[in-house]
Amino acid sequence: MGMVGGGRGAFIGSVHRMAAALDGEINLVCGAFSSNPKKSKLSGKDLLIPANRVYNSYQEMILAEKQLPEGERMDFVSIVTPNHVHFGPAKMALENGFHVVCDKPLCFNMKEAKVLQKLVKKTGLLFALTHNYTGYPMVKQAKMMIKNKAIGKIRKVVVEYPQGWLSTRLESSNQKQAAWRTDPKKSGIAGAMGDIGTHAENLAEYITGLKIKRLCADLNTFVKGRKLDDDGNVLLQFDNGAKGILFATQIAAGEENNLRIRIYGEKGGLDWSQQTPNSLIVRHLDKPMEIMRAGVGKQYAETQNAMRIPAGHPEGYLEAFANIYKNFARSLTAHLQGKKPKAVDLDFPTVADGVRGMQFIEKVVASSKSNSKWMTVDG
Amino acid sequence: MGMVGGGRGAFIGSVHRMAAALDGEINLVCGAFSSNPKKSKLSGKDLLIPANRVYNSYQEMILAEKQLPEGERMDFVSIVTPNHVHFGPAKMALENGFHVVCDKPLCFNMKEAKVLQKLVKKTGLLFALTHNYTGYPMVKQAKMMIKNKAIGKIRKVVVEYPQGWLSTRLESSNQKQAAWRTDPKKSGIAGAMGDIGTHAENLAEYITGLKIKRLCADLNTFVKGRKLDDDGNVLLQFDNGAKGILFATQIAAGEENNLRIRIYGEKGGLDWSQQTPNSLIVRHLDKPMEIMRAGVGKQYAETQNAMRIPAGHPEGYLEAFANIYKNFARSLTAHLQGKKPKAVDLDFPTVADGVRGMQFIEKVVASSKSNSKWMTVDG
Amino acid sequence: MGMVGGGRGAFIGSVHRMAAALDGEINLVCGAFSSNPKKSKLSGKDLLIPANRVYNSYQEMILAEKQLPEGERMDFVSIVTPNHVHFGPAKMALENGFHVVCDKPLCFNMKEAKVLQKLVKKTGLLFALTHNYTGYPMVKQAKMMIKNKAIGKIRKVVVEYPQGWLSTRLESSNQKQAAWRTDPKKSGIAGAMGDIGTHAENLAEYITGLKIKRLCADLNTFVKGRKLDDDGNVLLQFDNGAKGILFATQIAAGEENNLRIRIYGEKGGLDWSQQTPNSLIVRHLDKPMEIMRAGVGKQYAETQNAMRIPAGHPEGYLEAFANIYKNFARSLTAHLQGKKPKAVDLDFPTVADGVRGMQFIEKVVASSKSNSKWMTVDG
Amino acid sequence: MGMVGGGRGAFIGSVHRMAAALDGEINLVCGAFSSNPKKSKLSGKDLLIPANRVYNSYQEMILAEKQLPEGERMDFVSIVTPNHVHFGPAKMALENGFHVVCDKPLCFNMKEAKVLQKLVKKTGLLFALTHNYTGYPMVKQAKMMIKNKAIGKIRKVVVEYPQGWLSTRLESSNQKQAAWRTDPKKSGIAGAMGDIGTHAENLAEYITGLKIKRLCADLNTFVKGRKLDDDGNVLLQFDNGAKGILFATQIAAGEENNLRIRIYGEKGGLDWSQQTPNSLIVRHLDKPMEIMRAGVGKQYAETQNAMRIPAGHPEGYLEAFANIYKNFARSLTAHLQGKKPKAVDLDFPTVADGVRGMQFIEKVVASSKSNSKWMTVDG
Repeated sequence: MGMVGGGRGAFIGSVHRMAAALDGEINLVCGAFSSNPKKSKLSGKDLLIPANRVYNSYQEMILAEKQLPEGERMDFVSIVTPNHVHFGPAKMALENGFHVVCDKPLCFNMKEAKVLQKLVKKTGLLFALTHNYTGYPMVKQAKMMIKNKAIGKIRKVVVEYPQGWLSTRLESSNQKQAAWRTDPKKSGIAGAMGDIGTHAENLAEYITGLKIKRLCADLNTFVKGRKLDDDGNVLLQFDNGAKGILFATQIAAGEENNLRIRIYGEKGGLDWSQQTPNSLIVRHLDKPMEIMRAGVGKQYAETQNAMRIPAGHPEGYLEAFANIYKNFARSLTAHLQGKKPKAVDLDFPTVADGVRGMQFIEKVVASSKSNSKWMTVDG
Repeated sequence: MGMVGGGRGAFIGSVHRMAAALDGEINLVCGAFSSNPKKSKLSGKDLLIPANRVYNSYQEMILAEKQLPEGERMDFVSIVTPNHVHFGPAKMALENGFHVVCDKPLCFNMKEAKVLQKLVKKTGLLFALTHNYTGYPMVKQAKMMIKNKAIGKIRKVVVEYPQGWLSTRLESSNQKQAAWRTDPKKSGIAGAMGDIGTHAENLAEYITGLKIKRLCADLNTFVKGRKLDDDGNVLLQFDNGAKGILFATQIAAGEENNLRIRIYGEKGGLDWSQQTPNSLIVRHLDKPMEIMRAGVGKQYAETQNAMRIPAGHPEGYLEAFANIYKNFARSLTAHLQGKKPKAVDLDFPTVADGVRGMQFIEKVVASSKSNSKWMTVDG
Repeated sequence: MGMVGGGRGAFIGSVHRMAAALDGEINLVCGAFSSNPKKSKLSGKDLLIPANRVYNSYQEMILAEKQLPEGERMDFVSIVTPNHVHFGPAKMALENGFHVVCDKPLCFNMKEAKVLQKLVKKTGLLFALTHNYTGYPMVKQAKMMIKNKAIGKIRKVVVEYPQGWLSTRLESSNQKQAAWRTDPKKSGIAGAMGDIGTHAENLAEYITGLKIKRLCADLNTFVKGRKLDDDGNVLLQFDNGAKGILFATQIAAGEENNLRIRIYGEKGGLDWSQQTPNSLIVRHLDKPMEIMRAGVGKQYAETQNAMRIPAGHPEGYLEAFANIYKNFARSLTAHLQGKKPKAVDLDFPTVADGVRGMQFIEKVVASSKSNSKWMTVDG
Repeated sequence: MGMVGGGRGAFIGSVHRMAAALDGEINLVCGAFSSNPKKSKLSGKDLLIPANRVYNSYQEMILAEKQLPEGERMDFVSIVTPNHVHFGPAKMALENGFHVVCDKPLCFNMKEAKVLQKLVKKTGLLFALTHNYTGYPMVKQAKMMIKNKAIGKIRKVVVEYPQGWLSTRLESSNQKQAAWRTDPKKSGIAGAMGDIGTHAENLAEYITGLKIKRLCADLNTFVKGRKLDDDGNVLLQFDNGAKGILFATQIAAGEENNLRIRIYGEKGGLDWSQQTPNSLIVRHLDKPMEIMRAGVGKQYAETQNAMRIPAGHPEGYLEAFANIYKNFARSLTAHLQGKKPKAVDLDFPTVADGVRGMQFIEKVVASSKSNSKWMTVDG
């Protein structure tokens, strides 16, 4: 693995590194850790990367690594930069034969997204997008239960992602994470909706197996002087006729990362929260509700594949994140050996999820500006 | 107290009677317990009401009681019938000088609502509407905290009322509660939105002190053959600029009465759920969240007035309901003695809340049919 | 109902009155509300009791009411005084033909307890002891589940009642509730163990249907100057071989009335907490745990008899307390009509529970002073 | 790092490996993964260890690695075998100059424990015992709060570790984990008390900074045919006069790893549960309780040192386990560089904790057999 971004002071870079390291199947062998070459060098040193494989730019890294003999050069690029530096390295990596793991959202707009999607198709390379919340075991359990009709036809989906950390104008205090996320040049056309709304959208589509078909959005900017939305409420319609609500906000004072999804079907309901990720509440029409806990009782192979330790040992965010890397690594190993990856290993978000996310961003922003109620989401 | 409705087999009638009895300040002295005179008689007998004060109709009751000497006749009428029998007895009671406690929603439409509102104003009689959820101590604590700027200016309100009991077509199985609630002739133009959406609307306006100014609604009927909405999602805009979401549904399989409200302000957030009514979660920008429990620590007089027992003894639905009766009774006692009721005793929902509720019902139904995004809510 | 105690400023007196009033089946007709005749009169006036039936002492009340014609005089005495004034009025009431409801613990010692037990047996009068926590619907559900082998043979019981209100020397600040509870002359030989430890003991025996056979206690007084225990830990052995732990404390800073019981059997476990009384957690060997909620799904008749409203409407402490009064009243009505009370109505704690409680108090105090490990609990 | 044990099919071995890998500061370079040389080889291959450093026995490993040049040979031994194979490799490693990480409990009896303690002292080598629950951030926060008098002098400690997985005679079904844990030859003189009771004991002493001074134990074997305790209840007395309860059980049907500790002091209480590890409940005398969440608000440096990601990203069992390895690795790095490790890095359980654990095991077993109430715990 070669890393783009994630130098000193970055948050998500170290998350990617720990996630990749956890299962002992991936080695970080090189990186362009910062657009600032000096900072890149220092970061590489911190990480015990040989100096000759710490690069000044992702361009340099991709070209240099390509020259190395197979087996020695990096197998894939992990892109952990702010949004505006996703498209460039992803495109160049694919064009040069490298597989890609990329942080979300995929890129800046549908045009870029389509370019990447075509490249992935054309090259046959593997592409993982780190919509990490889909990596939790009980999320996979929920997905499999729905697939197997445990709650019947889905009628209603309520997905929410409240955060409170942008309740004040944090970006004006030089806080790096806040700064780029609220800057349209680095974040794109959406703020909260792009940063966390897409997680909610992706989770809803992943678990239900449905697609959002129409939406009606109301985006808001509550903090004065902020340039992008910091809050949004969206009515949803799914392709099977189900209805729903999605909200994502970064001004919900006092909330951490309270991502939650509730899905109601004709026969029951599922309820999962990221802050208690090892539990899945299952509601029934005429029976007591169950608290399904990771590893307790009979669960799907997909669920078990996402767990490292038996019931009663809470697994968290890093383990879920690592599940994307683990599945990607196993699929990649199969691929490199000329084999077809196992279905269970192909369970990670791909460029197609990235395209859906860009679609979602463009549509909620357009809908929010429109006086018409419903906006159709293509594809 | 004279009761209209609430005969054998009714649900809410006995709730009203227990709520009225709890504090020993109200006696049930007469009633027209059913539109079926025989059933009314039998119900009166069950309740140990002297036979001569069990009436065949509310009309008979109002006229007969009026003939009794003051002090002997009922002081007020309690209307606990299905929606279509609210307006008639409420109007006639007011016209004949009786104070009124009426179940919600107030009546059938804005026209009727305005008639009642004018009558209340003209007669100076007391009128309580049993939006019972406002009776919970921690709801009052939340209201007072907001009034006293504990969480700063309000930005976002999320209020929800999921139920699951109408997930199947229960009304076709002769279940009385389901039957009238899904019948437009008895329930009015809205189903779930009228039955429980109005509770959510009332709770949001009560706690925040704000008014819903615009809304965008999407009502649904998921159960085949049902004539009224059994689900609805609504985007909200409040008169101070706050935004929000309201949803009410009766097809959320497995949910009981999961009324919950979250309010986020510039400095913090409040979170209250009817199923754990003695707790109020208080979130802060940079401090651990608190679980405020009824009676623990210093709380507002309004909160304490709504509690009967010290901290640690859970109070529930009946106690909250009884708070409306208790406050009404104390205001009425003052009124009958020619005194001005105390402010703390006037803390019960009135005809004005009923008018807001009818307004809400009419606007969500209209909005749901409209292709325009926002619908203005007057008054 | 005639009341002994419960005058102005009392806590438990008003609880008894509300509990008795809730179902409209009991009227408070007379009382000796205080040992101070003047205070008794004022309290009677507050409660709208005719002056001639407000008595200066319980002795006066019992004798005077006895002179009134049947049907007019009180049917039973409700004793809501501090512990040292339980035995006197209970004995005199029984001797004069009045049925009794008495607050817990029954009296001061086993000798008194045996006197009352014999009197009840001899007179055939009804006697209810208000171990109110047994009145909760989900407690009854737990009892019935165990009776019907839902969790198999019981192996372990953990029952605990932490409170924090006596963490400081509250009794020295003239707080009435604290004062008598920490005064051996009014409370008896035990403090926390008598006040709340007996609730825990009673709950454990009620739900499990087992008897505590041996115990090993360690009582403590943490607050300097206090004369009775304010904390205690007890190892338990039940008559079927099950083992357990009971702890009761009033110095668990910040706790309200956190009564909780967990029972583990060969096939599963039950877990109930007074602060979330409408839920019962059911654990299984190899299945997800269930949260059984009052009124949801099929439940025992005994459970349903203890509920007044359908699922989703939380019921609390007063409703549970009222279930003792309701069952007592219905049994009494049958008794007065010369009928045998229904089994479901006889579900209230009796003098026998009071004897067990006194036994428990005497044994934990003795055990705490002993250097031997186990102390046998007779009878 | 060289590993003893943890071959194919082992549970705790892979936990140690993931914990060691997470932060990228430790490499697994060799191992004797099984007492079965063939299995050791295969396991080494799975783990991509060069064949020449996969050994047939720990003895072989220690001697062979010792021959390698410094910098190339393993720096420390990680012992992840069942209890009966702790003492041997630990002793030999220390005697040959290798630092040690050892799973708990330390060994088989106090005699062995003392030998190891003396060796550690004599050699100056680092020794970490993986009482992993002390690695959770909120456990460290609790410890620091108590140290800084946040809840005043401690009065009561309730620590419990219920599991349900040994509710049936799992050991007779060839389940490896159950088999050795219930076999006195492999587990030692205690079953549940050794396996998880020592975790509870260690957690209580770690957080409070107190020592258990006296105890009164009642150990039970509920499953027929089992040779060791599967349940135990213990009364505690601490060296500051605080009292408490410890229970550990493996027959609490339906429980996972529900380790919980409650500590009450003169001014407040703390409450932490392993199944919701990112929260710490803080109770106060006269204020609402707080839910302190990892990373929210100002927390101690020791807490922050134990977190890898900001608030809102749940961390779990592996992260807590990894904190022991991380601190050990950093202390070791300092040690190898001839520096004094930082205090914050020395925050991991040591051989002294192991001695306390052995002491606890011997005393609870002795107490359980005794008819005297209290048993003194030395040292």
